[in-house]
Amino acid sequence: MKAIQDLYPADFAHCYGCGRLNEQGLHIRSEWTGEESVARFRPRAEHVALPGFVYGGLLASLIDCHSIGTAAAAFMQVAGGKPGVDPSLRFVTASLEVQFLKPTPMGPELVITARPVEVGQRKVIVESTLAANGVACVRGRVVAVPIPANMIKPKVG
Amino acid sequence: MKAIQDLYPADFAHCYGCGRLNEQGLHIRSEWTGEESVARFRPRAEHVALPGFVYGGLLASLIDCHSIGTAAAAFMQVAGGKPGVDPSLRFVTASLEVQFLKPTPMGPELVITARPVEVGQRKVIVESTLAANGVACVRGRVVAVPIPANMIKPKVG
Repeated sequence: MKAIQDLYPADFAHCYGCGRLNEQGLHIRSEWTGEESVARFRPRAEHVALPGFVYGGLLASLIDCHSIGTAAAAFMQVAGGKPGVDPSLRFVTASLEVQFLKPTPMGPELVITARPVEVGQRKVIVESTLAANGVACVRGRVVAVPIPANMIKPKVG
Repeated sequence: MKAIQDLYPADFAHCYGCGRLNEQGLHIRSEWTGEESVARFRPRAEHVALPGFVYGGLLASLIDCHSIGTAAAAFMQVAGGKPGVDPSLRFVTASLEVQFLKPTPMGPELVITARPVEVGQRKVIVESTLAANGVACVRGRVVAVPIPANMIKPKVG
């Protein structure tokens, strides 16, 4: 099984958060387990909010890309596809909600678990929890929608 | 008048989003006008979601840090301080909501306008709009709280 983002078509694999073709990016990778998905991430030294704690914008980014990958997997599975095997569908974020339950410590690997709570034809809603050392620090909720036509650039040349 | 973040005490100026002392960071800067604040930002080439469009996690980061700076300014002003002149208070994010109204194009400078809608002793709520070429692309809502004691590291040595 590959990560969902490893199976995005190349045109959709440049995302700063999760695109395998973005050299400066974060390379967030979501592994689908059949009902939920898990991403693991170790922040870079510069990803601090205050000394010793992880930057909230990075945490929001982790929740965003991981939820979008999870939405694609859940949608594919309902449609009869095989997430982690078949090419991934590309969803985008309609809305993102992040609750910071407590400060997230720098140091430990962060584990983000995401679960689809509504899988419809027009949108998928994903809820997630980000934990450090087994302690939930952040909660997320993302409304994901299939990529709109106005975000697909015509090929040039 | 300085930006709010230029007046954070040095111990609180390492944030990846807005810390002037974070060399790799984004250096988001919020200018207070008396009732609201404005930040201007030009994404780096790698900050793409899909080719031609800005990464949502970056947009969430811009809204986050700019709203936190705005919360500090609004709180200071109510308390009789001078935002942009006096040392800034340091707030942190309790919750962050971002609505992506339409894709944000890469290229133009992004302008984020934030306004406090509730200024209390225990929290400040800030609403914001991010525009490109004068068109609103993203809306944000942040609940900001004064920095909790467990995020202030004791000095070492």
